[in-house]
Amino acid sequence: MIFELPYRRLLILTEGRLGVFSAKTGAAVLRYRPQDVVGVLDSEHAGKPIESVLGDAAGVPIFASVAESLSREPDAVLIGIAPTGGALPEPMRRHIVDALNHGLSIVSGLHTLLADDPELAELAERNNARIHDVRDPGPIHRIARGSARNTRAKRVLTIGTDCSVGKMVAALEMRRAAVEAGLDAVFVATGQTGIMIEGWGIAVDHVLSDFTAGAGEMLVEHVADRQLCFVEGQGSIGHPGYSGVTLSLLHGTCPDAMVICHRPDRRLHNDWPDCPVAPIAQQIAIYEQVLAPLHPGKVVAVAVHTAGMTAGAADESLRAIAEETGLPTADPIRTGCGTLLDAVRQHLAI
Amino acid sequence: MIFELPYRRLLILTEGRLGVFSAKTGAAVLRYRPQDVVGVLDSEHAGKPIESVLGDAAGVPIFASVAESLSREPDAVLIGIAPTGGALPEPMRRHIVDALNHGLSIVSGLHTLLADDPELAELAERNNARIHDVRDPGPIHRIARGSARNTRAKRVLTIGTDCSVGKMVAALEMRRAAVEAGLDAVFVATGQTGIMIEGWGIAVDHVLSDFTAGAGEMLVEHVADRQLCFVEGQGSIGHPGYSGVTLSLLHGTCPDAMVICHRPDRRLHNDWPDCPVAPIAQQIAIYEQVLAPLHPGKVVAVAVHTAGMTAGAADESLRAIAEETGLPTADPIRTGCGTLLDAVRQHLAI
Repeated sequence: MIFELPYRRLLILTEGRLGVFSAKTGAAVLRYRPQDVVGVLDSEHAGKPIESVLGDAAGVPIFASVAESLSREPDAVLIGIAPTGGALPEPMRRHIVDALNHGLSIVSGLHTLLADDPELAELAERNNARIHDVRDPGPIHRIARGSARNTRAKRVLTIGTDCSVGKMVAALEMRRAAVEAGLDAVFVATGQTGIMIEGWGIAVDHVLSDFTAGAGEMLVEHVADRQLCFVEGQGSIGHPGYSGVTLSLLHGTCPDAMVICHRPDRRLHNDWPDCPVAPIAQQIAIYEQVLAPLHPGKVVAVAVHTAGMTAGAADESLRAIAEETGLPTADPIRTGCGTLLDAVRQHLAI
Repeated sequence: MIFELPYRRLLILTEGRLGVFSAKTGAAVLRYRPQDVVGVLDSEHAGKPIESVLGDAAGVPIFASVAESLSREPDAVLIGIAPTGGALPEPMRRHIVDALNHGLSIVSGLHTLLADDPELAELAERNNARIHDVRDPGPIHRIARGSARNTRAKRVLTIGTDCSVGKMVAALEMRRAAVEAGLDAVFVATGQTGIMIEGWGIAVDHVLSDFTAGAGEMLVEHVADRQLCFVEGQGSIGHPGYSGVTLSLLHGTCPDAMVICHRPDRRLHNDWPDCPVAPIAQQIAIYEQVLAPLHPGKVVAVAVHTAGMTAGAADESLRAIAEETGLPTADPIRTGCGTLLDAVRQHLAI
């Protein structure tokens, strides 16, 4: 089923880990969904101005406890971290228990499913609250048939030369720019952070492999009557572990246009040894060829992740990639994504 | 985990459905694993010579009940059908109950998991028998890293221009011919029928999509020290629903050689409308290109499924495909697979 999170007054739990990198999920929700956040829950940082910690999100209060936050009338606690290993850190547990006791629902992207925790499940039931494990898409048994091709909505998929190269951010930024330009554009979330930001979607990497493309097809059909959708891609066609998820999304969503996301400093897939990232031009050709028998979607622009580079190095990198690919090239964060959206609109004639 | 079935005295349950097509799973086990079958359980056909029903498997007795079969000392009942819908047909249930009461284990490829049936689970526990749902691979959390490239065993993957075009049969027939030729060759099962035939494997289409390539990698590492393995492929790179499974196996097993399986009469993927099967030469190019960044595996031969054609039409079809692809071409069943194995051995220099 498609995940739906009906909350509009979120409390973001980061307990002791508030930070751009240590609480990536929370920082992303604060960045892309500020209107639905009533505060952050973090006793170590409580009372501080949040911008002194995050450099962003000014005005959002940091609370030490659920009780303190109640005056802002939160309706759910969203766990703002995604730790390696994926268990619930012990210091967070007491906040979850407090929240459930106050009837607040829980939104979690942890690997360990909180709904399977007997104490938490019992508390939720007793207090009429819900526990949403975003990572668990529930039973999905749809086999894709290529029907995404029939939606009224034009479909734009962000693809990548590797995993973690900015596919979600590129899709979100293009959607924002498209809406600002007056288009009826939506974001289609395929991973847990995207779902937390948008409030609906399917974590396609946790669907059984026979039905992963079908999950993509369900998502696109959910927005079939809109004008334009930006689908968050996953993985990379050359990544030894995740390429199957990538191709499932490609065939499940049948994009009219693709924007390829790239990190010039990434030489190896996932930074693993022995898995070099193929040149971007070669990858563009592979993406188009593997889609071609089903749908004539084209790669129309390159979104480059230049964080950490000097301005000069970033400019030089963008120029080099534009020359190598012959495509409009931009860093959505550093330079904005007007160029990328223009390329998409031109290709789709909208 | 890798599925292991330690049984060597199988009773194949087909109750009322014994036949080449109606009991495909059972017929495949009888064909490729005759030494481990002690009989068939089917009260409608009991006592008949089996070759009068199957045209094959002469000498295997058909019993009306589990009790009748006990003199042959069966150790497990294998459900020999794979019905649409996938529930346990009611006439089969009493045989399963009888078998469990006699301490026999159950091997099932049905969609409906028998281990989840409270009555059967309780019977199994009480009689110290096991229920193996081959379709359920259990928890697998391995992310592939391309390490299949490092096995001593050369890896041959059967791939397809569509699903159900003979990938399992081609791999089994090539393995048989390779063993007859004195090679140390093994078959690697990736689907339920293959697992029932070989006694081990993983049904990769029921692994979470992030870990599907990892499952392929686990399977290949399981036979890493052998000389040669024939991996049963799944789906097709152009199939809108299953392509992700196909690519996961390709990257998970990193084949040195691929044999592409093809049905000349298949114009549409899965016989669905609006999904034409791309020309075989185009598909060969896509398979090689999408594998190339990770491993230089090549398509070395074509296995053609010509069942239902006249001998003349089949010969003509093989000639035409050989001309289109420039590759050795054979129907493993009609013409044997010597040509295919020769092409593989030449490419691998073994």
